[in-house]
Amino acid sequence: MRAAVYGGPGDIRLEDRPEPEIDNSTDAVIRITHTAVCGSDLWFYRGDDEPETGSRVGHEPMGIVEEVGDDVRNVEPGDRVFAPFAISCGECEFCRKGTQTACTNGGFWGPEGEVGGAQAEKLHVPQANGTLVRVPDRYADNEEVLEALLPLTDVMGTGHHAAVCADVGAGDTAVVIGDGAVGLCGVIASKRLGTERIIAVGHHEDRLELAEELGATDTVASTGQAAIEEIQELTHGGANHVLECVGAESSLETAAAVVRPGGNIGYVGVPHIDDPSFLEPLFFSNASFTGGPAPTRAYAEELMEDVLQGTLDPSPIFTRTVDLNGVSEGYEAMDEREAIKVLVKVNE
Amino acid sequence: MRAAVYGGPGDIRLEDRPEPEIDNSTDAVIRITHTAVCGSDLWFYRGDDEPETGSRVGHEPMGIVEEVGDDVRNVEPGDRVFAPFAISCGECEFCRKGTQTACTNGGFWGPEGEVGGAQAEKLHVPQANGTLVRVPDRYADNEEVLEALLPLTDVMGTGHHAAVCADVGAGDTAVVIGDGAVGLCGVIASKRLGTERIIAVGHHEDRLELAEELGATDTVASTGQAAIEEIQELTHGGANHVLECVGAESSLETAAAVVRPGGNIGYVGVPHIDDPSFLEPLFFSNASFTGGPAPTRAYAEELMEDVLQGTLDPSPIFTRTVDLNGVSEGYEAMDEREAIKVLVKVNE
Repeated sequence: MRAAVYGGPGDIRLEDRPEPEIDNSTDAVIRITHTAVCGSDLWFYRGDDEPETGSRVGHEPMGIVEEVGDDVRNVEPGDRVFAPFAISCGECEFCRKGTQTACTNGGFWGPEGEVGGAQAEKLHVPQANGTLVRVPDRYADNEEVLEALLPLTDVMGTGHHAAVCADVGAGDTAVVIGDGAVGLCGVIASKRLGTERIIAVGHHEDRLELAEELGATDTVASTGQAAIEEIQELTHGGANHVLECVGAESSLETAAAVVRPGGNIGYVGVPHIDDPSFLEPLFFSNASFTGGPAPTRAYAEELMEDVLQGTLDPSPIFTRTVDLNGVSEGYEAMDEREAIKVLVKVNE
Repeated sequence: MRAAVYGGPGDIRLEDRPEPEIDNSTDAVIRITHTAVCGSDLWFYRGDDEPETGSRVGHEPMGIVEEVGDDVRNVEPGDRVFAPFAISCGECEFCRKGTQTACTNGGFWGPEGEVGGAQAEKLHVPQANGTLVRVPDRYADNEEVLEALLPLTDVMGTGHHAAVCADVGAGDTAVVIGDGAVGLCGVIASKRLGTERIIAVGHHEDRLELAEELGATDTVASTGQAAIEEIQELTHGGANHVLECVGAESSLETAAAVVRPGGNIGYVGVPHIDDPSFLEPLFFSNASFTGGPAPTRAYAEELMEDVLQGTLDPSPIFTRTVDLNGVSEGYEAMDEREAIKVLVKVNE
């Protein structure tokens, strides 16, 4: 079967790999039908991370179950399923607690793990009972629904995690920093949770326009001190709820500068910083700073329910669609910011 | 009247200053009877901060009300009172919310503010209605009670804030990093909130012994990676509740390394760091990181109630007592770690 692998910075290629097999009684094998390219895939694409050459890539799998081990009870061959970027058993302390990204039996797809990547024709799924989320049969072949569900594997759950960590709720004012796919999902999540005012902060006019379509009531396109002042003015001294959806020094500085004293920052971008100067204003704001890799598995059923009833649709973040042969082109389009997020349709 | 002032690094001296007066109708003037030297006073004493020479110092006032402005209703001349290190009106959004350190009408005593320092014979108190906490008459001259109440001006409220931010509760396991006065108060606060197991982490055998007397069930005297491994072993993989009571790079690194995934870090030391590498393990732990300058005013009544009924006594942190003439000696003893915290009795 064919799988996308890392060939070096800027080099994603398809290679033939062995068909995945059932190794343990809790495994499943799925035939991928939909997957995506993630902003975090750009880290290795740009050379910021350096996985081993030949590592399989992709961590947002959706597909059809082909085979299951003897102890898999939750899904059976033929089921349409998707899976969060983190493998999770569903039974350990951390899965029970809703922190599945720390599952004691878990792991990750893509170059960080040894399980395989989701940008491929097939995927080996450990801990299938916990990891796989089954799409109800009546929606299992509805393409529109499937494309709205696919972001639940990562970015939609991540935007939701930012909103949950920022403690947003009905009637609140939230600032969402970042206009990438996660920031846009942060806007969607904030709106879904009843936030009354959503201020989207970013660099790209077209993405901020999309943010408005998705629920942002205000947009801020400036940067640095100008952005901080604009947000401070819009919020009369800061917002109680800030979603930091980037992880860069400047976005953390903005978050710490615009959070209202005693407020809450949810952050979901891995902090990539050298200068920790945002910590001093963070401290003096007495704000909470909560986040991490999103336990998207914890949110999957809740978010799926809304997708199925038609009240949640993050699919507008997919601004380009490719097939497996086009994965490399998909990375390029995201790297050059020509696409917000790329949907990959496999095995069609 | 005499007041302690900053004369330069290592130089605290008494100088004559004008008697404080009522400038606004919400002011009070108090005659200081008790105050203290704080670990944070050592920042300027050691030259880490550089306030203006001649600035008045001290921010932990207790005394007798001498005079009040026309709009002061909560206290009257003759009352025994104490005040948190932050001035607060009690009426603004942030005071109502319990984040009095961000009071829109507030300020701070000591060299950061322009109001005066508490290591003095008298003190000008702005916003007296919100700022001053009245000690009930029947306890107003009970020296034992007063010495147990004095830490509520700062360190006891700060240790309690760390515990609240770390979300400790009955039956929990908490790790308290730091064996200074704040860390010891963090131990006391954790015990008071019902924590079952308290692991105190520090460098000084005598202070860790005191931590045990105050409620710690385990102590860790090692540092760096050895401390992390010891705590990981004691907690079988990390604690859900970590009180970071120092603010140094190493203590933040320890906190991020020993918090259990999905747990909570409460931090109350101003982060003094150059290298932000604790942020990556913090992120991957999905732990909350919450803290700031403690709104000790928010906790004053609750903690005072326990002191008055005899179930809370932080006074063992005072290991030396001086009079106003001895303030300089008090700084020296704390700087050389000969005293944990110094009580200053004034006007006796």
